Amino acid sequence: MTKIEKMGEKAKSAGRVLMTSPTLVRNKALDMIAGALLDKKADILAANAADLAEAEKNSMGTAMLDRLRLSEARIEEMARGVKAVAAEEDPIGKVIEGTVRPNGLQILKTRVPLGVVGVIFESRPNVTSDVAALCLKSANAVILRGGKEAFSSNSALTKIMREAVACAGLPEDCVQLIEDTSRESAKEMMCLKSLDLLIPRGGKGLINAVVENAKVPVIETGAGNCHMYIDAAADFGKAVELVFNAKTSRPSVCNAIETLLVHETAAQDVLPAIADRLLEKSVEIRGCEKTRLLLPGALPATDEDYATEFNDYILAVKIVASPTQAAEHIAQYTSGHSECIVTEDYETARWFTKTVDAAAVYVNASTRFTDGGEFGLGAEIGISTGKLHARGPMGIEALTSTKYVVFGNGQIRE
Amino acid sequence: MTKIEKMGEKAKSAGRVLMTSPTLVRNKALDMIAGALLDKKADILAANAADLAEAEKNSMGTAMLDRLRLSEARIEEMARGVKAVAAEEDPIGKVIEGTVRPNGLQILKTRVPLGVVGVIFESRPNVTSDVAALCLKSANAVILRGGKEAFSSNSALTKIMREAVACAGLPEDCVQLIEDTSRESAKEMMCLKSLDLLIPRGGKGLINAVVENAKVPVIETGAGNCHMYIDAAADFGKAVELVFNAKTSRPSVCNAIETLLVHETAAQDVLPAIADRLLEKSVEIRGCEKTRLLLPGALPATDEDYATEFNDYILAVKIVASPTQAAEHIAQYTSGHSECIVTEDYETARWFTKTVDAAAVYVNASTRFTDGGEFGLGAEIGISTGKLHARGPMGIEALTSTKYVVFGNGQIRE
Repeated sequence: MTKIEKMGEKAKSAGRVLMTSPTLVRNKALDMIAGALLDKKADILAANAADLAEAEKNSMGTAMLDRLRLSEARIEEMARGVKAVAAEEDPIGKVIEGTVRPNGLQILKTRVPLGVVGVIFESRPNVTSDVAALCLKSANAVILRGGKEAFSSNSALTKIMREAVACAGLPEDCVQLIEDTSRESAKEMMCLKSLDLLIPRGGKGLINAVVENAKVPVIETGAGNCHMYIDAAADFGKAVELVFNAKTSRPSVCNAIETLLVHETAAQDVLPAIADRLLEKSVEIRGCEKTRLLLPGALPATDEDYATEFNDYILAVKIVASPTQAAEHIAQYTSGHSECIVTEDYETARWFTKTVDAAAVYVNASTRFTDGGEFGLGAEIGISTGKLHARGPMGIEALTSTKYVVFGNGQIRE
Repeated sequence: MTKIEKMGEKAKSAGRVLMTSPTLVRNKALDMIAGALLDKKADILAANAADLAEAEKNSMGTAMLDRLRLSEARIEEMARGVKAVAAEEDPIGKVIEGTVRPNGLQILKTRVPLGVVGVIFESRPNVTSDVAALCLKSANAVILRGGKEAFSSNSALTKIMREAVACAGLPEDCVQLIEDTSRESAKEMMCLKSLDLLIPRGGKGLINAVVENAKVPVIETGAGNCHMYIDAAADFGKAVELVFNAKTSRPSVCNAIETLLVHETAAQDVLPAIADRLLEKSVEIRGCEKTRLLLPGALPATDEDYATEFNDYILAVKIVASPTQAAEHIAQYTSGHSECIVTEDYETARWFTKTVDAAAVYVNASTRFTDGGEFGLGAEIGISTGKLHARGPMGIEALTSTKYVVFGNGQIRE
């Protein structure tokens, strides 16, 4: 048995204890984790400083460094996040449906944990406590495999969380961190039979590697090639602000838009205003031929551009002849995350929401709202772009399964 | 593009039409299929006769031949099955949850089809119409890949269904059958990017091949290594009849039991009575050492026996010292399908339903009830032994996903 396989077995045992643990005990563990994060800020910051020193030695970019960096304020935020998860409703044990069959069998569909959840993530150490908290709340053991850059920080956080979990009377193996941060350990996780679910959180490379190699159940998260379509019947004032918000409020995240589609009868009036507004944030526009006639400063857009999640201050633009053409472009390029139409036309709005196939389809609102908190689901473990099990922001319930419990008094089947 | 990839593209187009098709049109297609199956009985029976002739030439066993054989009565049953699916409620478009956020966004969680469903199945041709009906009802295009033995029957059935679907005004490519019944075509399906879901329906070999090779989302179905545990506090009269029913009423199916666990204080009183009852059906018993002291006619059971889904008149038996030991044995060997305790003790019954991790956990009832019809879910497309998306009998709803539809009036995210 490899080291990771042994961790899998330990997680299964811990998961069995969690499965029947009362809500109070799991909430106590979360409260103790939150307390310990605050009490041991100094240890966490020291470990994080080691990661930062190493990162600077390896000339990590400032954006990446910023994601890696913890501070007292960030640790306090992590502790608040754990407390918020503790305060959420416990889904485990709920009876979702129940019936009595004509033969007297009582059949209850109940909510149960998955068992063991694996999460592969990249450099943000706050993910470590977020993910562990969501898994504990939903009574799942978790195996974490963070990025190499954050290894010291993740180790310190995991040590603190394991101690807290043990203090609450649960097995410390409810939370485990894989020490090997090589590609091989990620690959091994993708085939680790003891995992009931593997969630990759990261860039396209990671997601693709998981789809290619995984032999355990997987939920893909986060790839966001999102579109906004400005219809002929759009309110242009709204359109300008919606594009500006969806593109520039945080270009690095998955719910930002990458391509703007504009109806040809609207283009002349709205595109120059949009370009002006985007100029405030120095957004680079890559447009189709018709776009470039209206916006001479725009670069030419390639098919590759339409397929790309820029995660940057870049926007591809295409002028289309109809809502149908917009929907066809979206069907071809969407990653199934978030798609938006800007229109004041009732039928076109309804048609778009029915026709476009994505986790979230918007009318006249920024795609940036696709988020567990914004949707009122509480903390999220990721945003599923798959269609099975969970779609869109995944809260605690996405970490559960169901079990039929059947009570009889000797019923046999004829 | 290979032939199967082209079928995938056609299915995607057909799926987009289905996605926005009214319930009435899909129900009409189902009614026309049911009518056409009855009108064209002669064609179906002729095609089936060709399969049967080929099967006899290849010395197929009588049980397999029986599964392959259609008759007027079986075709009528297939038509009734399609009509029953038409009569079920349409899940598509339902609003599951809805909320208005403080910023005025109205967020609706709606039920939508998956898109394209692939099903790999073995020799029973009635599966062809069942599966197609469930997929059409749930607005999914379906790609069928049946067994070689039933190819003529499946071709005739698919032709009839495609014509009926077209008559109802839907694309005939809503239902497609893969003509290549080689292993390669199954493997190609496992990696066919246009599939939103692949369901393998068949033996352990097929399921394992799918888990090993699939790069598309999969729901595993049907593997059933099910247990019944007779507790010290069992009603022995009930116990004898429950074991007899769960083992012998249809040993070839996944919800039959394979291993019987008996508490040591109950064994002496109940095991001989069980063995006598099972003798009526010539069930072979393979027991642990303690079992063989009580039942001298029993063969010795190996670990391999405990891991095997016999699908036959064979029962493995093990005497255990406690409910905990029973649960541990189950945790080690279960395929997560159906597990049962026979007991009159309140706390033990509750403990067992919480501790045992399976799609269906029974108290004092035969495991044979794990079935869409028996659970009141209507027709089923399979029984999921996985924990993601669907668990246990899968009805129409298991063939759907969700989509968030968000209505705003210009909301942007701060």
